[in-house]
Amino acid sequence: MVTTNLDTPNLDSAETVAATAFDLKTYLVQQAQQVEAALDRSLPMRYPEQIYEAMRYSLLAGGKRLRPILCLATCKMLGASESVAMPTACALEMVHTMSLIHDDLPAMDDDDYRRGKLTNHKVYGEDVAVLAGDGLLAYAFEYIATQTKGAAPEQILKVIAQLGKAVGADGLVGGQIVDLASEGTLVNEETLTYIHMHKTAALLEVSVTSGAMLAGADAIAIEQLSRYAQRIGLAFQIVDDVLDITSTPETLGKSVGKDVAAQKATYPSLWGLEESQQRAEQLVVEAISALDGFGGSAEPLRAIAQYITARTH
Amino acid sequence: MVTTNLDTPNLDSAETVAATAFDLKTYLVQQAQQVEAALDRSLPMRYPEQIYEAMRYSLLAGGKRLRPILCLATCKMLGASESVAMPTACALEMVHTMSLIHDDLPAMDDDDYRRGKLTNHKVYGEDVAVLAGDGLLAYAFEYIATQTKGAAPEQILKVIAQLGKAVGADGLVGGQIVDLASEGTLVNEETLTYIHMHKTAALLEVSVTSGAMLAGADAIAIEQLSRYAQRIGLAFQIVDDVLDITSTPETLGKSVGKDVAAQKATYPSLWGLEESQQRAEQLVVEAISALDGFGGSAEPLRAIAQYITARTH
Repeated sequence: MVTTNLDTPNLDSAETVAATAFDLKTYLVQQAQQVEAALDRSLPMRYPEQIYEAMRYSLLAGGKRLRPILCLATCKMLGASESVAMPTACALEMVHTMSLIHDDLPAMDDDDYRRGKLTNHKVYGEDVAVLAGDGLLAYAFEYIATQTKGAAPEQILKVIAQLGKAVGADGLVGGQIVDLASEGTLVNEETLTYIHMHKTAALLEVSVTSGAMLAGADAIAIEQLSRYAQRIGLAFQIVDDVLDITSTPETLGKSVGKDVAAQKATYPSLWGLEESQQRAEQLVVEAISALDGFGGSAEPLRAIAQYITARTH
Repeated sequence: MVTTNLDTPNLDSAETVAATAFDLKTYLVQQAQQVEAALDRSLPMRYPEQIYEAMRYSLLAGGKRLRPILCLATCKMLGASESVAMPTACALEMVHTMSLIHDDLPAMDDDDYRRGKLTNHKVYGEDVAVLAGDGLLAYAFEYIATQTKGAAPEQILKVIAQLGKAVGADGLVGGQIVDLASEGTLVNEETLTYIHMHKTAALLEVSVTSGAMLAGADAIAIEQLSRYAQRIGLAFQIVDDVLDITSTPETLGKSVGKDVAAQKATYPSLWGLEESQQRAEQLVVEAISALDGFGGSAEPLRAIAQYITARTH
């Protein structure tokens, strides 16, 4: 467990009180519960039940809900209500879930387990899994467009544009394609960073910047928050690579050692475990310094950055 | 070849002149060329080339471009510039192409040819084909959001919402899932109509209504245009079913006889060939009567409706 509780609280300013009182574990649990309920409401069962069941199976399969939480936290940090960002927060999880369903397909990473449960295609078949992913992706954009209240239409369009870019060939899909092409080859640091900036960091970045846009943030604030998100995104991926080597399937809820088996290039394969961990920690330091201008209300984002490198699953 | 040229032109009114002078074949060729050029510009090659090449391979593989043409024609009919609707027109073709790429996958319909060319996964592999579809779907929404000029942001959001619905579990994906579940079973007319209203008509409907929304049409006009589009959508599918039985692979550019081989329910299997053709023609009559309030400027939409039942591929 990671919190930012300090042993010697300084009560001189409200800002410091906020920082010392901040309990990340409780915050993450509460926010995840709120997101969970919103996701459940976002996609009720209806005809044809088979596709809604398959979509709900993966969308409501648990997980850290890090992307929605980042979106809500950023929106609130900038003074807007979390409710403005909730439809986008749900959409981010729909898009993330789509990418997991499709990545797990036999033609892709061929995984049987995800978040401790059978993967979508193992339960519903490959055809339904392809369609469940497509359905979630399309619904994500529809959901933002129809459900976002309290933000200017121009801002909502920008969020949709950025989400599309983060998922498409210039984002997640692009990262995945370079990753697939790199299997079994010697990959340099530049290519590996491309892969992870697109496969992982791009969606984390839009999680943060969409929350900022919906709160009406200016370009400078969005630029700083992009820096924050890119750095935690890369750190997150480095830690993922490390955990694939050092963790167990029980702790991680998915297969381990797959990167090595698939001869995938990873940060530990380039730098070794220790330097990988150090670089992840350095990225977190840089991420936190990008939040300098946001004061005490940025405490959730700071704590989440620290949690990235300390997590065990 | 189908045109609406009449043998005995009546020159009494400008409207009739417009109707008699309208040459659908030339119109479709010109509009398709314009759409082709816009699609080519919409998705330039860039890194990672493999995914852009796969997306462009299917997006630029020809086809009638019926959805973009319907979108542009409706927008122009209502007095707005076609350029307002062109990004949405391109997005409709991106979404349609995504659905073809994913439908052709081995886990789905397992087709080797499409539009007379090898299917995406036969050229690039299944993994790339899944991702190319995902990339096109995400890009469609991004492209509408970033490229549409000359329409109110609220209208653009409505277009995005309707496109998402037309593609997702309440549209194309829902139709496809019921279709897959129905293979090898006895399907009644209600289920067959559900399948085709969602697999085919939903995207044709949003092609028309999005063009209307971008031109600032009122709710009554959009309702009439929905009726038009649903009827041509269903007629289009009935004719598709008929052609699967009566056509050759050379004429059709894709496999024929697959519905029968897969024991798929089709309109000819319910009604026979002759009644299927008659019902398609009746739907076209109803579609054209839904255009009654739009005068001479609706001539392209009328001619397209007539073309549906007369086409041979």
